[in-house]
Amino acid sequence: MIQITGTFLDEITHDIPSQNWGHREWTKDFDAMKAVGINTVILIRAGYDHHCTFDSVVLQKKRRMLPTYTDLVDIFLTEAERCDMQFYFGTYDSGKYWINGDYQAEADLNKAFCDEVMERYGHRKAFNGWYICHEINTFNNGMMQVYEDLSTHLRGLKQQPILISPYIKGVLQFGAEAISLDRHIREWEQVFARIEGIVDIVAFQDGQVPFHELKDYLQANAALAKRHHITSWSNVESFERTFPIKFPPLDYRRLRYKMEQAHAAGVEKLITFEFSHFMSPNSIYPAAHHLYNRYQEWLTDQKNGLADL
Amino acid sequence: MIQITGTFLDEITHDIPSQNWGHREWTKDFDAMKAVGINTVILIRAGYDHHCTFDSVVLQKKRRMLPTYTDLVDIFLTEAERCDMQFYFGTYDSGKYWINGDYQAEADLNKAFCDEVMERYGHRKAFNGWYICHEINTFNNGMMQVYEDLSTHLRGLKQQPILISPYIKGVLQFGAEAISLDRHIREWEQVFARIEGIVDIVAFQDGQVPFHELKDYLQANAALAKRHHITSWSNVESFERTFPIKFPPLDYRRLRYKMEQAHAAGVEKLITFEFSHFMSPNSIYPAAHHLYNRYQEWLTDQKNGLADL
Amino acid sequence: MIQITGTFLDEITHDIPSQNWGHREWTKDFDAMKAVGINTVILIRAGYDHHCTFDSVVLQKKRRMLPTYTDLVDIFLTEAERCDMQFYFGTYDSGKYWINGDYQAEADLNKAFCDEVMERYGHRKAFNGWYICHEINTFNNGMMQVYEDLSTHLRGLKQQPILISPYIKGVLQFGAEAISLDRHIREWEQVFARIEGIVDIVAFQDGQVPFHELKDYLQANAALAKRHHITSWSNVESFERTFPIKFPPLDYRRLRYKMEQAHAAGVEKLITFEFSHFMSPNSIYPAAHHLYNRYQEWLTDQKNGLADL
Repeated sequence: MIQITGTFLDEITHDIPSQNWGHREWTKDFDAMKAVGINTVILIRAGYDHHCTFDSVVLQKKRRMLPTYTDLVDIFLTEAERCDMQFYFGTYDSGKYWINGDYQAEADLNKAFCDEVMERYGHRKAFNGWYICHEINTFNNGMMQVYEDLSTHLRGLKQQPILISPYIKGVLQFGAEAISLDRHIREWEQVFARIEGIVDIVAFQDGQVPFHELKDYLQANAALAKRHHITSWSNVESFERTFPIKFPPLDYRRLRYKMEQAHAAGVEKLITFEFSHFMSPNSIYPAAHHLYNRYQEWLTDQKNGLADL
Repeated sequence: MIQITGTFLDEITHDIPSQNWGHREWTKDFDAMKAVGINTVILIRAGYDHHCTFDSVVLQKKRRMLPTYTDLVDIFLTEAERCDMQFYFGTYDSGKYWINGDYQAEADLNKAFCDEVMERYGHRKAFNGWYICHEINTFNNGMMQVYEDLSTHLRGLKQQPILISPYIKGVLQFGAEAISLDRHIREWEQVFARIEGIVDIVAFQDGQVPFHELKDYLQANAALAKRHHITSWSNVESFERTFPIKFPPLDYRRLRYKMEQAHAAGVEKLITFEFSHFMSPNSIYPAAHHLYNRYQEWLTDQKNGLADL
Repeated sequence: MIQITGTFLDEITHDIPSQNWGHREWTKDFDAMKAVGINTVILIRAGYDHHCTFDSVVLQKKRRMLPTYTDLVDIFLTEAERCDMQFYFGTYDSGKYWINGDYQAEADLNKAFCDEVMERYGHRKAFNGWYICHEINTFNNGMMQVYEDLSTHLRGLKQQPILISPYIKGVLQFGAEAISLDRHIREWEQVFARIEGIVDIVAFQDGQVPFHELKDYLQANAALAKRHHITSWSNVESFERTFPIKFPPLDYRRLRYKMEQAHAAGVEKLITFEFSHFMSPNSIYPAAHHLYNRYQEWLTDQKNGLADL
C-alpha cells in the first residue's frame, strides 16, 4: 500500500494564506486525515518572527509578539490524542537571527523556548517527536551548529525522534542558480556526515526538481541517508510550485507519481506538506476536495488490487 | 464592544477579482453585513477609467466607457435603505488625469459627474455621505487642490460628511522606499493643516506597516486628526497584503489585533476594505467564510463578557 | 441570440491549476455545458512537454513522459458523444523543439503522434475536427511550415475542419513590446495569405487588447479572414489577464461586452477558453459559479427579447 501517513500542520506561515479555522474545523479535519490513514502530524513551526501558536513567555521577553487568542498547540495535541496520532513539535524560526548569520542566538532562543514547551506540553500523550524547522538546501556550517546544539538540548528534554525536512536547490525553485545532482550529492554527503547521530529522520521536500528527474534525486537521497544510518522519509508536497498562482493544490497525477517514485526509492514513510490546505475535503481550495476524492479512489483501488504501478 | 460598523463596497477594481454577483447575491450579503452590525457602506469609487457602476452620460461624453448593463449604485442604495444603512458615495477615478498631473481635469470631470449623481441619486434616503476616492500617502499639493475644489462643490450639492481613506507609505507596500514614522507625521501634519474644514473624516488604511509598529502609527494619526478637528476612523483592512496570492482574506488573529489597536488609539469607528470579498459568508473565498465565523464568535464573547483584551 | 457554443477543454496546462476532476466530475460539467448551448469542445492540446492526456506510445519513445493513469481523450469523446457535441483534437506541444527553432522536429513528432491518435480515436463519432495547438501572434515562417506540413498530414488522416486560435501581441500581455493595430494587420495579412487553404477556421483570442480597442481588432481580423476565405470564430476568453491573481474568472460585464463586439464584427461562432475553470457551476473558482448564473440570466433575457444591445 502506497500511502501518505503523515502531514505537516500549518497555521503560521508567511506564504500560505490562513484558513481561519477554529477548534471545530480542526476536529473535522483530523477526522478527514484519519480516514485516509494519517497517523503522524508535524507542526511546521511553533512560531515565526512575531507570530506564535501559543502565548510564549520566553518569546515575549525577546521579541514583540502578537497575541495568539487561542492555543493551537493544545488544539493539535488534543486532536492528535483523540485520533491516536503522533505529534512532532516544530521549533521556532526567528526569521531574523540565523538569516543574519547569528546562529548562536537562534539556537539559544530555541533552547529556552523548548524548555517552556516541555513544561507546558511535555507530558502530553501525543507528543512523540521533535521537528527542527530550519530548512537548508546545501551544507551550511552555521546551521550544523544549530542542529548539534539544539539536538543535544532536545534529547536532554525528551528522548524522541528528531526530524528535519530539507529541500533541494533545484531548478523549479532556483532557476539558473540551481545545482546539479552531482553537486547536490556532494553537498549532502557533507551534511549527512555531520548530522549522523544528531538527526534521526530526514524527509526531503520533493517539489524543487522536474518530475522526470525526481527518481534520481529520491534514490540518491535514500542512499545517502542509509549510508549514514539515518531514516528516510519523503515529504511529498501536495501543492504546485510552478504556477502563477502560488500555491494551488497539486494535480492528482503528479501526487501519485511522486508517491510511487518515493516508494520505489525505498523511503520508510510518506508525509506531505500539507494535508489541510491542499488535500483536504475541508480545504479553502475546492481543488483539494477533488484531490482528496481522487486520492481516496486510488487507496481503494490499491486495497482491491486494482491499481497497477 | 469592538466592532466593524462600516465597509467599502467594491465591484470596480483593477486588482481584486469580480465576484460576479447580481442583485440577489448583494441582497444576501447586505443581510450578512447587518447581522454583524454594519450600518455604513461606502462605494469605493463610482467609476474607474473606462468602467462605471452605472451608465453615466457625463463620463460617456469624455471617455470611451464600457456598458454597465445594470445600475450598481441603485442596487446598493436599495439594499442600504432596506437594511437601514448609511451610504457614502465614492467619486470617479480617471486613472489618467491626476496620474499625469492634470489635477484640474480630475476635479472638473468629477464635479460634472457628481452633478449627474446628485440628480440621479441625491434624493435617496440612504445617501448620507461623500467619499473622495483619490488616495494619497504623503503631502501632494495637486491633490490638496482637488480635495478643496471637490469638497466645496460637494458641500454645495448636499450637506453631508466628506470622508477620505489615505494610506501609509509603509514597508509592507513600499519596501525600501517606505518612509519613517517621523517623516509620516511631518507629511501628515501638512496634509491635515490643509484639509481641516475640507474633509470631515479620515480613515487611514492599516495594512502598510508591520503589525508590531501599527500601534504607533494609529496613535500618531489619531492625535493629528484630533489636533485639526477631524474625525478619526480606521480602515481595518481584512485582506493580506504580503502573501504571494494577492489578496487572500486576513488571518482572524491579525484582524482582531488591528481592531483592538485601533480601538485603543481612540478612533470613533472601524470600517473595513472590504466585507464582501474578505469577511463574508457569501464570499468567493472560503477563508472569508471562516473569518466571518471567527469574527462572530468574538462578537458573541464580547457580548457575554468573555473576551479579554 | 449571442451565445458561446464552443469551449476548450484544459487539463494539461502549465499556468492554470488542475481541478483534479475524475470522469464523474467531467460528466457533470458536460451537462452544464449542454445546458447553456455548448455543442463543440476543443482539446487545448493532447500533450505538453512531459505530460499527455493518454499514454502515447509515440511520445514515450521520444520523451520521458509521466504516466497518465486515466485516458482523458476517451473520457472527453465519451462525454461529447453522450451530449451530441463535436470534438476537436488538439495536437502535441513539445514545449521544446519549436521553441528552440527546430520546427521540423515539432512537425515530425506531431505527425507520428497524430497517426497514433487516428488509430486509437479516429473512428469515434464525436471526432470532428483538428486543432493545431501551436499559437502565434505575428508572422513566423517556421510555424507556417509546421502548419503546412501538419495540415497536409491531418487532411490525409481525416477530412475535417482545421482550427487555430492565435493571439494578438497586445498591451495587456506585452506592455511596451506590444504592436500597433496597423502592424498587427500587416503581420496577419502575411499569415492569412500563407494559411489560406491550409487552415479552415481562425479563432483569435480576445484578451490581449484593452476593451475599448477590441472592436477595431475584431473587425480587422474578421475582414482579413474573409478576404482569404477562412472562417472567423472568436475565442472569448472567460478569465481576467490583468489581475495580480493569475487568472480569475472574468467579470460578467466584460464577458458580455466582448461577446457583443464579436457578434457585431460578424464572426460565425463564439468559443471560450474555457468553460470548466472560468464559467462553470462546477468550477473550483466560486466566481465562475456566479458568472454562469449571470450568463444564463442573459441568455434567458435574450430568449424573452428583454436584452438590449
